[in-house]
Amino acid sequence: MFVLGIDPGLSRCGYGLVRQDKGDLSAVAGGVVGTPPDLPTPQRLGVLYSELTALVAETRPDAVVVERVFFQTNARTAMATGQAGGVALLVADQEGCEVAQYTSNEVKLAVVGFGSATKEQVQRMVAAVLGLPEPPRPPDVADALALAVCHLTGRGLRRAVAAKAGVS
Amino acid sequence: MFVLGIDPGLSRCGYGLVRQDKGDLSAVAGGVVGTPPDLPTPQRLGVLYSELTALVAETRPDAVVVERVFFQTNARTAMATGQAGGVALLVADQEGCEVAQYTSNEVKLAVVGFGSATKEQVQRMVAAVLGLPEPPRPPDVADALALAVCHLTGRGLRRAVAAKAGVS
Repeated sequence: MFVLGIDPGLSRCGYGLVRQDKGDLSAVAGGVVGTPPDLPTPQRLGVLYSELTALVAETRPDAVVVERVFFQTNARTAMATGQAGGVALLVADQEGCEVAQYTSNEVKLAVVGFGSATKEQVQRMVAAVLGLPEPPRPPDVADALALAVCHLTGRGLRRAVAAKAGVS
Repeated sequence: MFVLGIDPGLSRCGYGLVRQDKGDLSAVAGGVVGTPPDLPTPQRLGVLYSELTALVAETRPDAVVVERVFFQTNARTAMATGQAGGVALLVADQEGCEVAQYTSNEVKLAVVGFGSATKEQVQRMVAAVLGLPEPPRPPDVADALALAVCHLTGRGLRRAVAAKAGVS
C-alpha cells in the first residue's frame, strides 16, 4: 500500500510517499512543491494544483493524507495554509483517492507516542521507522512522511477496533 | 464590464454578478453554491470547484473578486473558509480571469462609507446602488454583490491615482 502525505503550505508544500509491504514501512519519495512568493495568490494556487495533480497522477497512491490545521498564531499564514490545504484535498478528490486528515497532535501521538513531541523528535522517529540513515530534510518532507506513517500505523489499530466492535 | 463577487464558504458560497454600463451598476445574477454537510470535505471542495468553474465559464466575468479573510473567532470555520476561498481563487486563475481580493472592512468602506458598518447597512446600500427594490437575500448574495460593487467603484479611483502618479 502506498500513502502520500501532504504538509500543506503556499510557499512550501511538503510531500512524502510511504510504502507498506507486509509490516515494513519504507520511504519511496519526498520533496517540496514551492511557489514563487512574487506571484499573485491565485497563480500560486494554480501552480500548486498542477504540481500536486501531476504528483498524484504519477505516483497513484492508495490514500492521500493531508494535515488538518486548526489554528496558527499568524492569521495570514493560517489562511494561506487553508487555501493550500483546500487545493490538496481537491486534487485528491479529483484523482479518486481515499483521503484522510490528521492534526499535528494526532501525528505526534502516532509516531512518537505523545502529542507534545518536538519537531526534532518527530524527524528522528520518522527516520527510525522508515529505516533512513538520517532525519529527512527539509522538515516539510519529514512532516509529510510522518502523516503517511500515522495513517499506515493507525490502520491496523482502526481495523482491530472495528472488528472488535463488530464482534461485541 | 462584468464583475463576479464571491463570498467564500464551504457550506454556503455566495456569488453575485454586477454589470457596469458607463456609470450605471446593475445586478445581473446572484445565488449561493451550497455543499452537503454530510459529504467529506474533499468531495465538498470538489462540488464547489465544479460549480464555480461552470459559473465562471458561463458568465465570463472580466474580473473575479473574492473576499480576503484574515481571521475569524471559530478556527474550524476559518479553515473551511480558507479552503473554499482557495478553490475560488484557483478557479478564477484557471479560467484566465483578473482576480482581486478585498477584506470585509474595505468592502464596507467602499459601499457604505465606513469600515464598521453593519451587515444590514451593507445590504441596504447594495440594494440602493444596484437599484434593487429590496436588499438581496440571502446575505451571502448581498456580500458577494458588495464585493463586485467595491471593485467597480474603486476602479475609477485607482485609475485616477495611477494617472496622477504618472503626471507628477
